[in-house]
Amino acid sequence: MTRAHPTRRARRAQALLRSRLARLRRKLRSGAGTGAAVSPLAPARFPALAPVAGVEFASAAAGVRYGGRDDVMLARLAPGTAIAGVFTRSATRSAAVIDAQAKIGGPSEDGAAILVNSGNANAFTGARGDRAVAEIARAVARRLAIPPERVFTSSTGVIGEPLEPGRITAALDTLAAGLAPDGLEGAARAITTTDTFAKGAGGGFDIDGAPVRIAGFAKGSGMIAPDMATMLVYIFTDATISQPVLQEMLTRLNARSFNCITVDSDTSTSDTVLLAATGRSPAPAIVPGTETAARFEAVLEAVMRDLAHQVVRDGEGATKFVEVQVTGAADDADARRVAGAVANSPLVKTAIAGEDPNWGRIVMAVGKSGARAERDRLAIRLGDIRVAEAGWVAPEYREADAAAYMRRAELVIGVDLGLGAGAATMWTCDLTHGYIDINADYRS
Amino acid sequence: MTRAHPTRRARRAQALLRSRLARLRRKLRSGAGTGAAVSPLAPARFPALAPVAGVEFASAAAGVRYGGRDDVMLARLAPGTAIAGVFTRSATRSAAVIDAQAKIGGPSEDGAAILVNSGNANAFTGARGDRAVAEIARAVARRLAIPPERVFTSSTGVIGEPLEPGRITAALDTLAAGLAPDGLEGAARAITTTDTFAKGAGGGFDIDGAPVRIAGFAKGSGMIAPDMATMLVYIFTDATISQPVLQEMLTRLNARSFNCITVDSDTSTSDTVLLAATGRSPAPAIVPGTETAARFEAVLEAVMRDLAHQVVRDGEGATKFVEVQVTGAADDADARRVAGAVANSPLVKTAIAGEDPNWGRIVMAVGKSGARAERDRLAIRLGDIRVAEAGWVAPEYREADAAAYMRRAELVIGVDLGLGAGAATMWTCDLTHGYIDINADYRS
Repeated sequence: MTRAHPTRRARRAQALLRSRLARLRRKLRSGAGTGAAVSPLAPARFPALAPVAGVEFASAAAGVRYGGRDDVMLARLAPGTAIAGVFTRSATRSAAVIDAQAKIGGPSEDGAAILVNSGNANAFTGARGDRAVAEIARAVARRLAIPPERVFTSSTGVIGEPLEPGRITAALDTLAAGLAPDGLEGAARAITTTDTFAKGAGGGFDIDGAPVRIAGFAKGSGMIAPDMATMLVYIFTDATISQPVLQEMLTRLNARSFNCITVDSDTSTSDTVLLAATGRSPAPAIVPGTETAARFEAVLEAVMRDLAHQVVRDGEGATKFVEVQVTGAADDADARRVAGAVANSPLVKTAIAGEDPNWGRIVMAVGKSGARAERDRLAIRLGDIRVAEAGWVAPEYREADAAAYMRRAELVIGVDLGLGAGAATMWTCDLTHGYIDINADYRS
Repeated sequence: MTRAHPTRRARRAQALLRSRLARLRRKLRSGAGTGAAVSPLAPARFPALAPVAGVEFASAAAGVRYGGRDDVMLARLAPGTAIAGVFTRSATRSAAVIDAQAKIGGPSEDGAAILVNSGNANAFTGARGDRAVAEIARAVARRLAIPPERVFTSSTGVIGEPLEPGRITAALDTLAAGLAPDGLEGAARAITTTDTFAKGAGGGFDIDGAPVRIAGFAKGSGMIAPDMATMLVYIFTDATISQPVLQEMLTRLNARSFNCITVDSDTSTSDTVLLAATGRSPAPAIVPGTETAARFEAVLEAVMRDLAHQVVRDGEGATKFVEVQVTGAADDADARRVAGAVANSPLVKTAIAGEDPNWGRIVMAVGKSGARAERDRLAIRLGDIRVAEAGWVAPEYREADAAAYMRRAELVIGVDLGLGAGAATMWTCDLTHGYIDINADYRS
């Protein structure tokens, strides 16, 4: 067995090994991974968020799996709060997801609560998992004097291990005593697992001088076990808005925010987005089709997109934040196919990690997407740099420019199919040694 | 910004960095990558293959891109040879693929030829690429006195760079002079790019004492640029069999061999499988529906599966060869969805690299596949070890057994959905630092 071209391969292999050694030595010396291992793409700080009338938060250390940190959060919602939700489509979704799905759209006169634990996903735990969810919901309902049908739970963490409901119910007195309007940041921290930073976002606007607030938080950094980095998102507003209207908005905005991000194409068994509207703002109710509804929706979308981007920025091992913009597709569905194929391609994502403007891999991803594409109409750009068009490399393209562009931390890949008006945008990160380190590590 | 659980994370991160440093130092000392970097999953040697009557091979160094190695191969096929083919479905497929697709099924009275170059894929090179294919086919046709419609070409290597047909046509005299029945191994080597070993397989059987031979070769180790590790496969037999029958067999067997392997879910712009039957065996013609046809098909399938497995065994960075067996699906299409979701999941593949029996990730992949699945009917096994069943971990499951199993180089993941008779098998490899090294390397 001889190799194809020994000298070139050998030089390359040795150079790679040496550069990895140098990189690792630098990392060890710098103390990376010893406490400062926050994603390089993280925002500078958790945002300052104004309280949302009608919502209180508490967090506590229940010892579900982790020691020495809060691992359970409780949100109490005022009577009359409308709650909308979107959930993972996984056929193996967790007991908490199945329970919450069934409760969405029920009566909303009473108060409500959301309880989330980290450390254990309570997924693939059989009928025992279903019983744990019911027991937690009943205990929360009793403690807060609300119906169990108004208690929504989520669990994130290791899967296939039974969740001890007793540890969580034992923390309920502490949680109830700690409920406060400014507890959002603590709640955001309590639900993290492999996240390297807590994720929050908010915004607001006035209706005839009366303020409306939106604030939310999320967790997730890719789909990981043992700490299943499920994406969990909780957004709160004091707007007055009916449940069906809220649900319709959430479903629509979710399709262009959380459903447009990908870290590794894997889908959690527990993904959940809940949106609660307490109606405690002095502003009048929001009616669909009005200018006020449009303003509310714009702020809500900005909050959702901000949280979605933060999840990508915390992608395991991520060093680049990438926006994939697809235009000119035969229709929106085709545009989404192309965006997804580019954003999920291991070859595109490793090229980005290597800061290589390897546009051939983008052509490959377009080709495999299943969308209608014609070689001689396809155009590709990196940021504002026209790379390929009319079936070949663009005449003015200089690889040195593209290579310089690829060294940025935030990148845009543009694909125009030249066929129609279909468009889609997705956000992704690069695929690095860090991803392999995190995910090939034996659970211990 | 504080981290979730500093001590555990810090210890883990430092341990990972140290073990990677130690591994890299060992690799550098051992001279890995300096000449002996053949995949650990490679067969011990290229197989001894009996010549196939009616086929001759030659290879030569045309200097398409590489220096000091053969990079072009020519196969001459006897007059009357029936040629069947299956090709990539990529919408951005290469000029050579488009040309070859159009020629399949044409008249077969004349002699024929297959010419393949490595080093340049001639993909996304516009109309210039189409002209290069036509020029090479015309030159081969002239040199061998056959019609250009009987010349099939493939190109593999860097994409987006123009292929100089002159370099290849200049090598035609050398190639024609070197044609020999035993040239298959040299041809197999000439078409490799990032392959770490040349891939061949063969077999045969008798019809009433008259021998029928099948032999073939392949290249591919995942979808890589700059050396696009397109999968190219050429199989030859001296059986007498009509083109439509041959095409039907190839299409059917391809669906359960080459279409059931995945390295990184990415699809090349140039994938090609050609099957040529020269009719030079003394055995009678093979007629569909007969016992002889069944025997021929069994040998052909074994050859195709062998070559397909060799491509996976040469997957970039692969250290494990994995068979994913799905049974009990509602139908075969659902079974294939599940097998593909498991075989392509970065989380499943990194767990395998880490020798971690992390069956939760298999549950996740089943859930995201889009196939019908019910938690309480799903069963998962690793080899013969029952891992999960009836909605939870199997009662007799001991993680130590599974961890020991995962240390093997060849693994079986079994998924039974418990719903119907749908079944599918796919083959894949693990996802390692080696994959990132190879693919995040800047082209130079």
